[in-house]
Amino acid sequence: MTSILNDEHYMKQALNEAQIAFEKNEVPIGAVIVCQNRIIARAHNLTETLNDVTAHAEMQAITAAANFLGGKYLTNCTLYVTLEPCPMCAGGLLWSQIPKIVYGAKDEKKGYTLFSPNILHSKTTIISGILEKECASLLKEFFRQKR
Amino acid sequence: MTSILNDEHYMKQALNEAQIAFEKNEVPIGAVIVCQNRIIARAHNLTETLNDVTAHAEMQAITAAANFLGGKYLTNCTLYVTLEPCPMCAGGLLWSQIPKIVYGAKDEKKGYTLFSPNILHSKTTIISGILEKECASLLKEFFRQKR
Repeated sequence: MTSILNDEHYMKQALNEAQIAFEKNEVPIGAVIVCQNRIIARAHNLTETLNDVTAHAEMQAITAAANFLGGKYLTNCTLYVTLEPCPMCAGGLLWSQIPKIVYGAKDEKKGYTLFSPNILHSKTTIISGILEKECASLLKEFFRQKR
Repeated sequence: MTSILNDEHYMKQALNEAQIAFEKNEVPIGAVIVCQNRIIARAHNLTETLNDVTAHAEMQAITAAANFLGGKYLTNCTLYVTLEPCPMCAGGLLWSQIPKIVYGAKDEKKGYTLFSPNILHSKTTIISGILEKECASLLKEFFRQKR
């Protein structure tokens, strides 16, 4: 599998998580963390269900992956997330030392790059736009139904 | 009680939390959240104990305060924390809509202001330097012992 096909494959898994969030009436954002071609954490936004603004998909995925690995650093992992991380999640990802982040849609309001690209380490590989339309469509559909 | 005395009073409580972290061999940072002159959450850094880079004092305090209030927004609360929040914690605090943040020592390496002051809302009241020496001393002592 080429790298882009690989990235699309895992982004589809993140999209599945976003779909689960959608069905729970949560803002539909999903994430998976991959280590050596294996998904070691799956998570979706649960801020309403848990009544907790910190329960973003990425934050839960970081915690779950560290728990799986038995160590707090995700130095051999890749995060796939359907939406560009916010500063909170980007900050958490920096602490995790994760070397690669792949996201789908850009967040034009709360994306970390609007605040400071330096929240992530300059050596972190960041790939954006993977299944961008699908990731964005799910969010649009959610907010359309909310209106 | 004047406001500064009040702030010192609650910062001492945050320092107590930092001391508990110290005794657990955790980087000694503590936080409390106050609502209507009542401490509704106490937390200290637990990244080593929980094997989780997201377990900063502030993040746990946000979750605990929301749990106490039964709502995810901390719109009538003040956070007291011994060290300037990092981008992750500042991002979480933004989402929480907390209107006032009081911190002790400045974080010259990872403080959110080094990345972007805009991670916090421009209307958030931010007070720094309360019991700064005590807050910084505990951290210095911790890292001195580690060397």
